[in-house]
Amino acid sequence: MTMHANPSAETRLERGRRALDAIDGQAGRNVIDALAEIAPDFADYIFEFSFGDIYSRPGLSLRDREIATIAALAAMGTAQPQLKVHIEAGLNVGLSREEITEILIQMAVYAGFPAALNALFAAKEVFAVRPLDSAADRA
Amino acid sequence: MTMHANPSAETRLERGRRALDAIDGQAGRNVIDALAEIAPDFADYIFEFSFGDIYSRPGLSLRDREIATIAALAAMGTAQPQLKVHIEAGLNVGLSREEITEILIQMAVYAGFPAALNALFAAKEVFAVRPLDSAADRA
Amino acid sequence: MTMHANPSAETRLERGRRALDAIDGQAGRNVIDALAEIAPDFADYIFEFSFGDIYSRPGLSLRDREIATIAALAAMGTAQPQLKVHIEAGLNVGLSREEITEILIQMAVYAGFPAALNALFAAKEVFAVRPLDSAADRA
Amino acid sequence: MTMHANPSAETRLERGRRALDAIDGQAGRNVIDALAEIAPDFADYIFEFSFGDIYSRPGLSLRDREIATIAALAAMGTAQPQLKVHIEAGLNVGLSREEITEILIQMAVYAGFPAALNALFAAKEVFAVRPLDSAADRA
Amino acid sequence: MTMHANPSAETRLERGRRALDAIDGQAGRNVIDALAEIAPDFADYIFEFSFGDIYSRPGLSLRDREIATIAALAAMGTAQPQLKVHIEAGLNVGLSREEITEILIQMAVYAGFPAALNALFAAKEVFAVRPLDSAADRA
Amino acid sequence: MTMHANPSAETRLERGRRALDAIDGQAGRNVIDALAEIAPDFADYIFEFSFGDIYSRPGLSLRDREIATIAALAAMGTAQPQLKVHIEAGLNVGLSREEITEILIQMAVYAGFPAALNALFAAKEVFAVRPLDSAADRA
Repeated sequence: MTMHANPSAETRLERGRRALDAIDGQAGRNVIDALAEIAPDFADYIFEFSFGDIYSRPGLSLRDREIATIAALAAMGTAQPQLKVHIEAGLNVGLSREEITEILIQMAVYAGFPAALNALFAAKEVFAVRPLDSAADRA
Repeated sequence: MTMHANPSAETRLERGRRALDAIDGQAGRNVIDALAEIAPDFADYIFEFSFGDIYSRPGLSLRDREIATIAALAAMGTAQPQLKVHIEAGLNVGLSREEITEILIQMAVYAGFPAALNALFAAKEVFAVRPLDSAADRA
Repeated sequence: MTMHANPSAETRLERGRRALDAIDGQAGRNVIDALAEIAPDFADYIFEFSFGDIYSRPGLSLRDREIATIAALAAMGTAQPQLKVHIEAGLNVGLSREEITEILIQMAVYAGFPAALNALFAAKEVFAVRPLDSAADRA
Repeated sequence: MTMHANPSAETRLERGRRALDAIDGQAGRNVIDALAEIAPDFADYIFEFSFGDIYSRPGLSLRDREIATIAALAAMGTAQPQLKVHIEAGLNVGLSREEITEILIQMAVYAGFPAALNALFAAKEVFAVRPLDSAADRA
Repeated sequence: MTMHANPSAETRLERGRRALDAIDGQAGRNVIDALAEIAPDFADYIFEFSFGDIYSRPGLSLRDREIATIAALAAMGTAQPQLKVHIEAGLNVGLSREEITEILIQMAVYAGFPAALNALFAAKEVFAVRPLDSAADRA
Repeated sequence: MTMHANPSAETRLERGRRALDAIDGQAGRNVIDALAEIAPDFADYIFEFSFGDIYSRPGLSLRDREIATIAALAAMGTAQPQLKVHIEAGLNVGLSREEITEILIQMAVYAGFPAALNALFAAKEVFAVRPLDSAADRA
């Protein structure tokens, strides 16, 4: 699964919107909507830079990109809302619940047990509201 | 590539030593040696917990585990020596230079451009001293 | 707007109380009140050191000091309650809502998009409960 | 008070369970219970590594270990739930409320006033729900 | 001093190159050059996103933007090379040595004395190699 | 060993100078000297606030205060120079090399193995240049 087919045919904004929608789904759209009142330009940067530029680059699959993002956000420990969005995104692009749980457990080694614990509890919340029989969980 | 074949036949320490050796290679052995004088028990915890327990778990490949570790250490920005060891480890378990570079570029989105920059310069140092024709770089 | 007129005529505590009141207003007083039960001495250090010493120094305007504080707290990502107090303080000493929003957007470059996002949502909360026609917002 | 009497007579898991129970009490058991559904193995690592290995080491008293943990968690600012558990644990192993408050105030010097403030408010919550006449508070 | 005059007449890359040159000067060019070998695309993102998009936005002066960046990098404590570049940039866009020193001293309140100390020593290095009679220092 | 005998008989600056000298010794004086050129006032704040106010408070021994500081600085991972000063200070106020090593090993649980490793290597450097037969090491 890649986002970078035919990039020249669309603007960065269009490519980013398409990528965000495919990766983050409703959770991503909620963040964009919440920005409308305070900083709508910032929503465009999320589309254009994060998704239109970075996630659309070839050279790393979306599944691998979400492993990296989930690990980073769990280790940082300062971005719980974004960690939940990307645990959801990980499921959307083919990571299983078990794989996500393994990534988070591993963070105990690099960022300490509290970082891993808080990330595991975030995953527990995401998993609880998502139907188990969705396609991503059978991946 | 997995570390968890026949775990019951060896101790956590033995399994951890074998895993550390396969993953981190000489860079890992250097860390262990440097600990001998100040905290030899801590070297055992690295073997036993980090590698004997965590990296030896099934459920996530070593390649995926290194994506997670490289991303986390780059995002944290407080562990440059360990980041270099794991960029080396990433190459050892099958990540290409391009994939590692992609992971580090992506960290700009989550931890800021300075974190990505400092990690890219760490990778540049590791790549510079490692022969390009090694097996890992052709993966 | 400066806090350092005639510093010798008052104690550090008095100068700090006056400065905290002018800068942080009710939000600052709430923090001090909440400390009364657990660590009243710590409230004195906030008055004396943070406001009586640092914010009362000549050499940088209060407006510039609040730019620095808002940026730092947004980038750190571990001090959301204090970030809200200082977004309020920024408005009190002459920063406009637009300027504060610009500072927070810029933090995406240095501390990542999640840090900027969480700070923008904090600003959204502060802006929502503050009347738009106050003097600070017309600055 | 030590945890390391006769370590060879019990497994790491048993020793860790006993240590966690003595140090963290009910707050620790709640964390373990919450992990049951998402990552029961991680609960075992907390028992085995954190408490069976580290807290059971001779060379530093449990009281001194909790000073270190409370200081670290307060300074990091990313682990408020764990900070509360260890403020409780500190009281359990002989730290007084005054000593814990001193540790947290001191963190203003090393991690900034917001880190100290947020930690003091965490302590206020823990102290509020714990009866004052318990043994630990008379220590 | 603004970067946003006539933005539509040039590409993001051109606008970013112009802005980086005016703000960061030689220190910025050195970073870009060092990226050429490892991740040339990342240099483009620095031009396009950081400088072409963010620093080129109206609504906050370059002087105010550098106050925010210097404060953030000092508080984070994980980006000493970038902090030095932006202390230099601050001088380039009109901050005086005294003002920069005030910003860094103030960080002791929010990020602790070590963060302020390490940032002050970074500033000392930058100030030492820059001629005192430059225009920026007379601002 | 306390710093708070007869505090009213001396100024905060005098009390702080005396405390810094007793606790940090030559390592502390070197920091103060290095500040003379860039921010001499900041040296005074270190004397007055950190040592004159905080370390001079009754309610926690200097030995316990250094446990807290060493743990916090090791966990934060952004203050290696200050960590070395306080490892030295810990020895000065009665912590043994073994106790300091235990504190640092324990940080692996809360801040991750890299934080503990980097702190252990800092301790190794401090221990290497300090004669083993000093009073502190026999404590």
